[in-house]
Amino acid sequence: MPQIDLNGIFPPITTPFVDGNVAYDQLAFNIEKWSKTGLKGLVVMGSNGEYVYLSAAEKRKLIEKTVAATPDHMLVIAGTGCESTQETIALTRDCAGLGAHAALVVTPHYYGGRMNEAALLAYFTAVADHSPIPILLYNVPKFTHVNISAKLVAQLSDHPNIAGIKDSTGNVIQLGELANVVDADFDLLVGTASALFGALAMGCVGGVLALANIAPRQCLKIYELVKDGKYEEAKKLQLKMIPVNQAVTATYGVPGLKAAMDMLGYFGGAPRPPLLPSSEKEKSEIREILIKAELLSD
Amino acid sequence: MPQIDLNGIFPPITTPFVDGNVAYDQLAFNIEKWSKTGLKGLVVMGSNGEYVYLSAAEKRKLIEKTVAATPDHMLVIAGTGCESTQETIALTRDCAGLGAHAALVVTPHYYGGRMNEAALLAYFTAVADHSPIPILLYNVPKFTHVNISAKLVAQLSDHPNIAGIKDSTGNVIQLGELANVVDADFDLLVGTASALFGALAMGCVGGVLALANIAPRQCLKIYELVKDGKYEEAKKLQLKMIPVNQAVTATYGVPGLKAAMDMLGYFGGAPRPPLLPSSEKEKSEIREILIKAELLSD
Amino acid sequence: MPQIDLNGIFPPITTPFVDGNVAYDQLAFNIEKWSKTGLKGLVVMGSNGEYVYLSAAEKRKLIEKTVAATPDHMLVIAGTGCESTQETIALTRDCAGLGAHAALVVTPHYYGGRMNEAALLAYFTAVADHSPIPILLYNVPKFTHVNISAKLVAQLSDHPNIAGIKDSTGNVIQLGELANVVDADFDLLVGTASALFGALAMGCVGGVLALANIAPRQCLKIYELVKDGKYEEAKKLQLKMIPVNQAVTATYGVPGLKAAMDMLGYFGGAPRPPLLPSSEKEKSEIREILIKAELLSD
Amino acid sequence: MPQIDLNGIFPPITTPFVDGNVAYDQLAFNIEKWSKTGLKGLVVMGSNGEYVYLSAAEKRKLIEKTVAATPDHMLVIAGTGCESTQETIALTRDCAGLGAHAALVVTPHYYGGRMNEAALLAYFTAVADHSPIPILLYNVPKFTHVNISAKLVAQLSDHPNIAGIKDSTGNVIQLGELANVVDADFDLLVGTASALFGALAMGCVGGVLALANIAPRQCLKIYELVKDGKYEEAKKLQLKMIPVNQAVTATYGVPGLKAAMDMLGYFGGAPRPPLLPSSEKEKSEIREILIKAELLSD
Repeated sequence: MPQIDLNGIFPPITTPFVDGNVAYDQLAFNIEKWSKTGLKGLVVMGSNGEYVYLSAAEKRKLIEKTVAATPDHMLVIAGTGCESTQETIALTRDCAGLGAHAALVVTPHYYGGRMNEAALLAYFTAVADHSPIPILLYNVPKFTHVNISAKLVAQLSDHPNIAGIKDSTGNVIQLGELANVVDADFDLLVGTASALFGALAMGCVGGVLALANIAPRQCLKIYELVKDGKYEEAKKLQLKMIPVNQAVTATYGVPGLKAAMDMLGYFGGAPRPPLLPSSEKEKSEIREILIKAELLSD
Repeated sequence: MPQIDLNGIFPPITTPFVDGNVAYDQLAFNIEKWSKTGLKGLVVMGSNGEYVYLSAAEKRKLIEKTVAATPDHMLVIAGTGCESTQETIALTRDCAGLGAHAALVVTPHYYGGRMNEAALLAYFTAVADHSPIPILLYNVPKFTHVNISAKLVAQLSDHPNIAGIKDSTGNVIQLGELANVVDADFDLLVGTASALFGALAMGCVGGVLALANIAPRQCLKIYELVKDGKYEEAKKLQLKMIPVNQAVTATYGVPGLKAAMDMLGYFGGAPRPPLLPSSEKEKSEIREILIKAELLSD
Repeated sequence: MPQIDLNGIFPPITTPFVDGNVAYDQLAFNIEKWSKTGLKGLVVMGSNGEYVYLSAAEKRKLIEKTVAATPDHMLVIAGTGCESTQETIALTRDCAGLGAHAALVVTPHYYGGRMNEAALLAYFTAVADHSPIPILLYNVPKFTHVNISAKLVAQLSDHPNIAGIKDSTGNVIQLGELANVVDADFDLLVGTASALFGALAMGCVGGVLALANIAPRQCLKIYELVKDGKYEEAKKLQLKMIPVNQAVTATYGVPGLKAAMDMLGYFGGAPRPPLLPSSEKEKSEIREILIKAELLSD
Repeated sequence: MPQIDLNGIFPPITTPFVDGNVAYDQLAFNIEKWSKTGLKGLVVMGSNGEYVYLSAAEKRKLIEKTVAATPDHMLVIAGTGCESTQETIALTRDCAGLGAHAALVVTPHYYGGRMNEAALLAYFTAVADHSPIPILLYNVPKFTHVNISAKLVAQLSDHPNIAGIKDSTGNVIQLGELANVVDADFDLLVGTASALFGALAMGCVGGVLALANIAPRQCLKIYELVKDGKYEEAKKLQLKMIPVNQAVTATYGVPGLKAAMDMLGYFGGAPRPPLLPSSEKEKSEIREILIKAELLSD
């Protein structure tokens, strides 16, 4: 099985749309900017990538174009989780064939009440068995209303082709419980920048962070400060970034993240309907928050 | 705009699979049986139809085959809700072209926190504007974690191409609130057989009921009894059916519904993974419940 | 064990306060008015009675005064549930000694995660064992975040001194599940007027209804209509009352109920802090709703 | 207004019962042991002290006895939150008169839906205005289902007699949001040992920790290590303590905490009903966890 080095910061990149279509030039423009910041790689078709709004064909083309636009020093991780096992396997294999280095697989969730440990164990095992590239579990109860138990992650961490987990709960206790039970070569990635410092201090090797779309250098700075044992400075920067991250995730969502990208020199653009773009009032509030955090000058 | 008569009982039919593929002969077999019971029509690709596990191509073919197998006296309602507005519109139009009489459109839900009234209003309006067939709203918080407000339903009920709502909360208070605010020609359908009697008594014109997959005659009997003002008898049959309905929905889910179908002479078969089939122990419990309700002889 | 006839409508009466003290004259004034409406009895120190804001001494005195002010044809049911078993038993015995005919005992709930079936079984059994008067279970997850299971209610219904349950979920499916499993002499009372019609149709013998504080005759009318088999009329009145009931429960709470009482000739007054009284804007909205329901003239 | 130094570790002490009565000798025995460990003080009548099961008279006596048994170098903080404003004020004043150094005031919660920012602002302001001793806010949604917003805490932190907050969510993001908005002299205390390290690293000055009842030295060690900048060691000890803390809080609750106390040389005893004591099976599981964490020898 291929190995993968997940130490570092990854933005779950937004998917740019122009006139309702995926806009590949704007994608390449953003990747060009991100590639100069020290990011370890990109996660494509995550929750911030509006993956649920992309057709099967769009998903393949998006991976193809992203791989082509991404320099060799960066990893491309494809979000390949679908509701059905067979569709997830097919997409994972296709993305591997198109050059993705790993696959991030969200918990199936429509029939949440039936996604018990046995069902999720069978699901992730089947996907990992059939994938030519390493699998990362993706736990994001905010969207899925399903939470993977530490016991199940421990079991899955034994699988040679399951390399780690992105946990987006922001719950450092849960990360601690995971750290206690997983295999040594199983990597923990935190899925929200608001908990980055605490998560790294607790043993996470990196993060997949919406905030890294707009503030990659600040995310990396926290990462480096913790690695260097400069906790007091890390804490200060973490506290400064919390309001920004809460804004572009919990408060204003993907539309807010895209609005912030537009303000900061990236291409953000509008989300796909039914997501509504940020209103002018919301944009004004986001701008204030960016200014206060010194990401934008007044 | 075409009109549609929704008075009656509709099973949200299960999708039969053999060797992992949609099994059209078994589908036709089931439809043949249902067609002799007095059901008003069939709902295809609802939650009990495992619609989230069907590919875009499978969905089109399933509608085509269902329309072909269904006698003229019955309606075919297609579940066409997808996460994105554009995909929902495309599927709705295709299903209309393939002969579906109406479309049941679930609330988008992945970004549940952002599916506020404005977003849902824009969504359902866009879908209804572009649909050649009547639209039914589909409210099923158990799976979507989104609940359509009475205020929004009232607004949407003004749209000439939105014909009604399937509400699966089982909450008769909510149904009453809807009855108070919607247009006179907007139809309320209850989405769970456990609340059928109460919902009909409150003004619902019919039901889309998982239970109607296995006990269509009992569902119809309750419907007729209420129409005839025989409330005491309706109540008795309702109470008798509650344990069965709870079993094939809340307790054992779609796998349990399919297991019960196999026991009762329909083709049920296995669900698609990651849904796990009912265990032998669960099947035995289901059998007991069917026997107790006199749907199956000892 | 004493028997009790729970067939009928009971308001869970509000507790009047003047200058922060329980106001017994105003209490007697309200009881005098209620006593002429046909209500079966009064529930004192329920959720609408702000029981959690009354001291141990106030509770005894309130029962004493209520019993004194209530005519013989009406029952007095005392809300005696406390968090600890011993305090509940002591209060129940004291209320019995002061003339209460039955006790309504809410599920303990602070340690909700530990209030499993075994704990609740032991609790209610101990209370019933030590009570000289019949016990009614009180299930109100909206406030307690604990829901009594049908299985547990079935067990408790065997106890000779547990006479029934007030279920305030408004969930007629749950009421149906209870109806299927409890002893024949165990009475089901619905705890919200918005579900009164559906609950009575399902087999409830009566209701403990916040709405009966302000619209006792309308609640009784629904009750009589269902008893007489006049379901269509019952439904119409039910639909008319839903907006009022939602207003004085879910939307505006106890302060709103008290404001409505003031508008309708009862003494409502202010709630105890930390509950805030209704604002002028809220009162104006409540007035509109009362006018629309023809409880108040324009 | 008196000032208070909250830097350090506080156990929210359990209340010992013998034959159903508060057992003051056992209380003094425990306090004697705790007093030799370096703990900054004791919190009495918190959630782990089963405060909801104590009568008004028991609460006064418990504070009196605790103050008498506690050496001068330790603080005594009294949990004085009741549902009503007036009862909370009365208890707070009485506890102050009995020698408590500060009061921990939980959010009122029975009418959770109405405990909005305005209601909680008025409540805490009234309590702080009338208290002779500093007030600590107590946020514990796990039990109360109410979460104090950062905005409200910021407002309340301006009050000269509100000294800090105990936040038991274990959510370091929320702690970070608080750190960003409160007054400089407002202290943040974390309310769960599983998040102690992360919380201290984020700026908390100490913790009120169930775990400190049984492992005071380990809690203090984490506290000291973080203060000394030894983050790697702090993390290791934190990870080792998480399974113990989860056991005596989330998994086995107060009964489990008391069982662990009995195993570790403190007096634990049984909880008051309706809390059930730990079963033998549960005790055996707790013992295993204590052994694995090297708090108990094999």
